[in-house]
Amino acid sequence: MTDLISNPQDLSALLADLPVMDKAASKAARARQDQLTKPAGSLGRLEDIAVWLAGCQGKETPQAENIKAVIFAGNHGVTRHGVSAFPAEVTAQMVANYSAGGAAINQLCVTFGAELNVIPIDLDRPTGDITIEPAMSEQDMIAAFNIGAHAVSPETDILVLGEMGIGNTTVAALLSALCFDGQGVDWAGPGTGIDTEAIKHKAGIIDQALAQHRKTAVNPFEILRSAGGRELAAIAGAVLSARLKRVPVLLDGFVCCAAASPLMLGASSALDHCLAGHVSAEPGHKKLLEALKMKPLLNLNMRLGEASGAALALGILKAAVNVHNGMATFEEAGVSTRDP
Amino acid sequence: MTDLISNPQDLSALLADLPVMDKAASKAARARQDQLTKPAGSLGRLEDIAVWLAGCQGKETPQAENIKAVIFAGNHGVTRHGVSAFPAEVTAQMVANYSAGGAAINQLCVTFGAELNVIPIDLDRPTGDITIEPAMSEQDMIAAFNIGAHAVSPETDILVLGEMGIGNTTVAALLSALCFDGQGVDWAGPGTGIDTEAIKHKAGIIDQALAQHRKTAVNPFEILRSAGGRELAAIAGAVLSARLKRVPVLLDGFVCCAAASPLMLGASSALDHCLAGHVSAEPGHKKLLEALKMKPLLNLNMRLGEASGAALALGILKAAVNVHNGMATFEEAGVSTRDP
Repeated sequence: MTDLISNPQDLSALLADLPVMDKAASKAARARQDQLTKPAGSLGRLEDIAVWLAGCQGKETPQAENIKAVIFAGNHGVTRHGVSAFPAEVTAQMVANYSAGGAAINQLCVTFGAELNVIPIDLDRPTGDITIEPAMSEQDMIAAFNIGAHAVSPETDILVLGEMGIGNTTVAALLSALCFDGQGVDWAGPGTGIDTEAIKHKAGIIDQALAQHRKTAVNPFEILRSAGGRELAAIAGAVLSARLKRVPVLLDGFVCCAAASPLMLGASSALDHCLAGHVSAEPGHKKLLEALKMKPLLNLNMRLGEASGAALALGILKAAVNVHNGMATFEEAGVSTRDP
Repeated sequence: MTDLISNPQDLSALLADLPVMDKAASKAARARQDQLTKPAGSLGRLEDIAVWLAGCQGKETPQAENIKAVIFAGNHGVTRHGVSAFPAEVTAQMVANYSAGGAAINQLCVTFGAELNVIPIDLDRPTGDITIEPAMSEQDMIAAFNIGAHAVSPETDILVLGEMGIGNTTVAALLSALCFDGQGVDWAGPGTGIDTEAIKHKAGIIDQALAQHRKTAVNPFEILRSAGGRELAAIAGAVLSARLKRVPVLLDGFVCCAAASPLMLGASSALDHCLAGHVSAEPGHKKLLEALKMKPLLNLNMRLGEASGAALALGILKAAVNVHNGMATFEEAGVSTRDP
C-alpha cells in the first residue's frame, strides 16, 4: 500500500483539497425521511444522522453492516513527570487485555457487531519529553500517521476510533491548547483519576510544554509532531484517510477528539465526516467539542477512552440506518397525513 | 390469569406494599464493577445501570437477553376539540403499520433484538370527553389496567413501554398537572406538530379538564380514570406488574412517563425499577422527568412516542450488561492497578 504522506507538505496538500460530502445523496435521504410514517422531524437526531451518513457514504440508503473499531496505543515520555494515576506499563498490559477480550471495548464491540483492531505503536519506544523536545521526529510522525491511514478500509461502513496510552490526556491537553489556545489549567483534568493537587502539577507540565512548542507548532503536522503521541498521530491519519475513502467516523473522548483537532486548522471542513460519540467526564472534552462545534450523541459520564464512548454510540447509528432504510412511507402503509 | 386489581382499593394496597430492590445483588454488582479492568467509575452511568439492573432483577450478573417492547394504543374523546395535528383514525392505521412492520419501532426492535407486542384497546370506543366527564368508568379503568398487567411476563429481562393514541399528549398534560400541579400552559406542547396558536387552544382544553377533575382526582386510581386514556392506564398496570415480577422497565417519552406518574403519588419508590430511556422534544417531558427525579439516558430531540426513545436506549442497557458480565478483572487480566 502507498503511504498517505511522505512529508509535511503532503498533509497540507491533502487538507487543501478534501472531497466534500455528497449533497445529492443527503438531499435524497432527507426527502425519504419526510415520507416515512411519523410526524416530520419527530425522530430528531436519528433523522439527521441518517442524512449525514448518506452524505458521507454517498448513498441515499446508507449502510451500517461493516463496522470497524480501531484502538491505537502509544507510550509517552511525559509520564516521567508523574502526570498519571497509573504506571506506564499499563498501556502494554491493556493492549494484551484487548487481545484477550477482557476489556470494556471488547464487550461493546460484541454488543454492536463491530470488529476490533488494536494497533500498538512502538510501545517500547516512548515519545520524547514534551517539556523539552518534540514528541516525535519528522520520520516518526510520518510513520505513525501512515499507520493510522493504512488501518482504514474503504469497505468499512462506519469507523470507530479510540486510543490507549498512559499519560495521553496530558498530551491531549497540550494539543487542545496548541489548536484552540488557553493554558494548562484550561485543559488539564483528572484523566484516569488524579486528585486536585496532581491536576495542578499536570497543568504546570502542560504549561512547560506549551512554552516549548507554542511558537513552532503552527500547522497540523507540527502540532501533532510536537505534542504526540504516536497513537494520536495515527488517529489523525485514520480520520483523514477515512475522509478520502468516504468512511464516516465516530470519535471517542478527549484524547481522540484532540488528535483530530489539528486537521481542522488545515481545513475547517476536515471533520465533516466525523461525529462525536459522546462527551466524556474529562472536563477538557466538553470545551474541545465546543471549539470543534460538535454536538456529542451521548452524555453518560464516561471517561475510559479505548473507543468506549464512540462504540456505545454505534447503537444509535445502527438504529438510525435501520429506521431510515426499513420504515414504510405514508403511502405504502396507508396512513393518513396531517389534518389539512 | 388472575387480574391484578378488581377495585380501586386493590391498587392502593399494592402500592402500600411494594417489593424493594435487591440490595445484596446491587452491592455485589458494585463490588464486581470496582474490580474490572478500568479506572474505578470510568464507565459512568454504564456502571450505575448494571448495578441498578442487578438490584431490579435480584442477580449480581443481570441479564438482557429476553427483551420485550409493548405498545398500548387507545383513542381519546378529547380529539373532538381539535387538539392534534393528525385525525383520530391514525391510531388504528399506525397499529396496522406496527403489525405490518413498517413503523420506526419495528426497526428499533430489530436493531436491539427486542420482541414487539402491540395491544390496541377498544380503539372503536374512544374515552369520554375529559372536559366534561371522566375518561373512563371504574370498570373500564380496571379492565385497561389489567390488560397492561397481563402483558408483562416474569421471564422478561427488560421491558420497554410505549404508546400510540392521537390526542394523548393532551391527556398526558392533564395527568401531569393532576400529579404535579400547574395549568394547561405549563404542560401543553406541540405533540405531533401543532402550532403556537393551537397549543394555546390545547392548553385551554386542558384547563377545562383540570377544572372538571382537580377536586375528585386525588389518588392514583382516580387520576388515571379521570384523565385516561386506556393506553395510559395499561402502561400504569404494566409498570406495577413489572415491579411485582422483578422486571426492570424502560419508559419512553412524555405520555409514557405521565402514565406512570400517578403510581409515585401512591408510593414514592414506585418507579425505582424504571429508567427514562430519553427526554423527548415535547417540552412537558423535561419538566415531568424533573418532577419524577429521573435522569434520562438519551437526549436526541425525538418526539415520536410508540416506545421509540425507550427502545433506542436498549443499546445502552445491553452494553452495560455485557460490559458488567464479560469484562476481566485486574487480577484475571494481569493489569497493574493504580500507582500507590
